[in-house]
Amino acid sequence: MVKQERAARTRQALIQAAAEVFAEEGFVTASLSTISKRAGVSNGALHFHFANKGMLADAVEAEAAKAVRLITEAARAWQGESLQAVVDATHELTRSLTHDTVVRGGFELAGDTTRRGEPSLRTQWRHWVEDSLRRADRNGALAEGVSWSDSARVIVAATVGFEVLGGDDTSWLSRQNVTRFWEVILPRLAGRQDLDRLVSSGSRPSAVVPSAERTSG
Amino acid sequence: MVKQERAARTRQALIQAAAEVFAEEGFVTASLSTISKRAGVSNGALHFHFANKGMLADAVEAEAAKAVRLITEAARAWQGESLQAVVDATHELTRSLTHDTVVRGGFELAGDTTRRGEPSLRTQWRHWVEDSLRRADRNGALAEGVSWSDSARVIVAATVGFEVLGGDDTSWLSRQNVTRFWEVILPRLAGRQDLDRLVSSGSRPSAVVPSAERTSG
Repeated sequence: MVKQERAARTRQALIQAAAEVFAEEGFVTASLSTISKRAGVSNGALHFHFANKGMLADAVEAEAAKAVRLITEAARAWQGESLQAVVDATHELTRSLTHDTVVRGGFELAGDTTRRGEPSLRTQWRHWVEDSLRRADRNGALAEGVSWSDSARVIVAATVGFEVLGGDDTSWLSRQNVTRFWEVILPRLAGRQDLDRLVSSGSRPSAVVPSAERTSG
Repeated sequence: MVKQERAARTRQALIQAAAEVFAEEGFVTASLSTISKRAGVSNGALHFHFANKGMLADAVEAEAAKAVRLITEAARAWQGESLQAVVDATHELTRSLTHDTVVRGGFELAGDTTRRGEPSLRTQWRHWVEDSLRRADRNGALAEGVSWSDSARVIVAATVGFEVLGGDDTSWLSRQNVTRFWEVILPRLAGRQDLDRLVSSGSRPSAVVPSAERTSG
């Protein structure tokens, strides 16, 4: 393995280990030596890549932000400016909160009192949902009398709720739970002509979260 | 002032100060000396009442749990087993998350990774919402084809979302935000005969959060 490649792998292993430890213990309690041990590298190697815990947390958040961006971009590429894109993205987001430690760790950091004020993953998600609802509204996809911004607030609040409650009880992040949410909510949000075509359980049969792709990149 | 009364006041001041410091800094970072200073008492007085930080946190959570119980009991006493009781309780809960530091601090503790596993305020709230929706369903207050448990999950997830997002941006806890949530959600949940009578902005004109009553008790 070339030196540069090895360094990139070590960095990635450290981000992965940090995300796990942040998710388990919280940012404040997490120790650098627990993280380096988990990553299977020396303290020296950790310090070569990250000057302090804050910089490791920034790297986890950046990586998680990239994963969330891939999810939302894929949903829009697949379903355009429709409500289905939002339905699909919530399914992929909750799926990756269950399976992708970096995404879970990134959201845990967003909730950390000591790191407040940083631009958070929740804000990134909120902006995308708002933008998507605005577009759906412009395309006439919303039911009459329903505002895009109120709809966006309900979706954002509920998904943040799933994320937070899912930290203790993963059933909140299950496909079934998210499907039921949309079954309750879609008949109110979607225009009548669209409702029959919308799939509450998501329109993509298989996973699109390119976690492996991301880590090798 | 009699000695016993003074001790009760000191204890209350410590709980109040601890809730503030937990909400601002998080449980792990909060120091006992910051808390005693904030309460205007000596470290010795703090240790007379609370052996350690965990016991202070337990006291904050117990106090917050009492406040939430008062809110839900008042809502049911006022509006019975109707959806309006749930609407009213969400308004009172978000109001008290804005104005009552002990309630805010109690919910912050519920989100603390290091205190996970404790029976949390969020669980208490979820149980009440589930119980209320079950009762409303039994009374025929839900729209046809809508399940009480799915409805409860949407309400719980959204209110936990309000609570968490409200830590950074209090507009999520505003009466307007909660009203808009119900305006989106009620036409889907409520039976047609009830919908006209339900008030999304809450049916109680003035506050019922008996914060003063609680602290003097």
